[in-house]
Amino acid sequence: MTTENLISEIRKKQSFLCVGLDVDLDKIPEFLLKEEDPIFSFNKAIIDATHPYAVAYKPNTAFYEAYGLKGWKSLEKTIKYLNENYPQIFTIADAKRGDIGNTSSRYAKAFFKDLGFDSVTVAPYMGKDSIEPFLAFENKHTILLALTSNGGAFDFQTKLTGEEELYKLVLKTSKEWSNSENLMYVVGATKAEYFAEIRKIIPNSFILVPGIGAQGGNLKEVCKYGLTDNVGLLVNSSRGIIYASNNTDFAEAAAVEAKNIQLEMKAILDGVR
Amino acid sequence: MTTENLISEIRKKQSFLCVGLDVDLDKIPEFLLKEEDPIFSFNKAIIDATHPYAVAYKPNTAFYEAYGLKGWKSLEKTIKYLNENYPQIFTIADAKRGDIGNTSSRYAKAFFKDLGFDSVTVAPYMGKDSIEPFLAFENKHTILLALTSNGGAFDFQTKLTGEEELYKLVLKTSKEWSNSENLMYVVGATKAEYFAEIRKIIPNSFILVPGIGAQGGNLKEVCKYGLTDNVGLLVNSSRGIIYASNNTDFAEAAAVEAKNIQLEMKAILDGVR
Repeated sequence: MTTENLISEIRKKQSFLCVGLDVDLDKIPEFLLKEEDPIFSFNKAIIDATHPYAVAYKPNTAFYEAYGLKGWKSLEKTIKYLNENYPQIFTIADAKRGDIGNTSSRYAKAFFKDLGFDSVTVAPYMGKDSIEPFLAFENKHTILLALTSNGGAFDFQTKLTGEEELYKLVLKTSKEWSNSENLMYVVGATKAEYFAEIRKIIPNSFILVPGIGAQGGNLKEVCKYGLTDNVGLLVNSSRGIIYASNNTDFAEAAAVEAKNIQLEMKAILDGVR
Repeated sequence: MTTENLISEIRKKQSFLCVGLDVDLDKIPEFLLKEEDPIFSFNKAIIDATHPYAVAYKPNTAFYEAYGLKGWKSLEKTIKYLNENYPQIFTIADAKRGDIGNTSSRYAKAFFKDLGFDSVTVAPYMGKDSIEPFLAFENKHTILLALTSNGGAFDFQTKLTGEEELYKLVLKTSKEWSNSENLMYVVGATKAEYFAEIRKIIPNSFILVPGIGAQGGNLKEVCKYGLTDNVGLLVNSSRGIIYASNNTDFAEAAAVEAKNIQLEMKAILDGVR
């Protein structure tokens, strides 16, 4: 998917909501456990109910790998279902991969070509040659961790390297890589006060923002400095939407939560104009 | 597996060789492609032939994920085969994972409990709460990327943070984490000249050393400053061993390569005494 397609979907839906499909069999409605593939059944229902309000879905691979072969199968079915039924929706494999070049190429192939995701999250620690194999794919997007939503972000990411924090060095350095126009970045909603500084370095890039809802980030604060002329934000909510109810009404309850966020987003977009 | 078990196996075999099982269907002998599970057949033959000379095996997960469900199944069969037939051998899931706490817990469960690996490699960028879920597992080992073998290591890892390079900050900081006695570290063989400095910070920890062979690192150089009283090194070779031949003699050829390295290791260990 091109960035233009993503922007057009955002404009159409007046939403920059990403729904995180972090499925935990201990948290989904019990009656689904009787299904042949409870994870996929859950995802399908959540997607069908929330797609009018969301422009992106983001399964975190850890939740699927935790169920071994069965989990990997559920992931395959979920991305296939999305691509077949909602091709205009942006898909993110939240995998946080990164390895030496010939190995990163394998990950890129797995997520972009075989599974068919539009994007994948990657970790910057191993540098340029660990990320460029992802950037080489046309109309695919590589989402680089910059400043993450968790407390551990302060261990290394905010440490001064020379005159600037490590995450700023990551932002600046990555702009020089081949096909860097295919880069997006992860910045946690819990770090809203950093967005002004970040936008000085990457004024136009899309930023994937986890951490609203369960993790405590605030949408308005993020938008204050994060929004660009092309919106430039994908704000993710996982647990707050997908576990809104664990009864038979779980999908409707998820839709209500997604719609509430979408309405809040629409109000913000209206206000910016 | 306890660290003591690993050390005892190293002493017994006079080897600290780790064989990287990075299986690429384009590189394995063609006749194996007729098998039901060519990746597993390849791994089984390599393991059976090289195990007298190796104390560890390290499949890199990227090579398995690149084949989707089939690849994941081959990985499951490989680790099961190792645990059932060579339980004294240390196993490493080279996965380079790392995510926020509740997500890292899922990865830890997947690799330690479900798959049954002794250890997993992790990336430090997201800090303490992304790694501690791995460290919580008893008799399991978490191998933290410190200074990697690739060129991209110089993009961020060697940048000065305050008065020391980022990789040194990673080493020092990680020593303060809960259950840090379960930590090992990755330092590339191509960075042999850094080992003296690194041993000042982690005098006793095991270091997993990729990068000899195809990547150009030198075993003697690494050992000069890397060896400890308990050996403290696992030196990995992947392509140099597993692709020594791509004919019917591939397993024997791999064994010859592995034995050559083991003999070199024995000579070094003899020389240290």
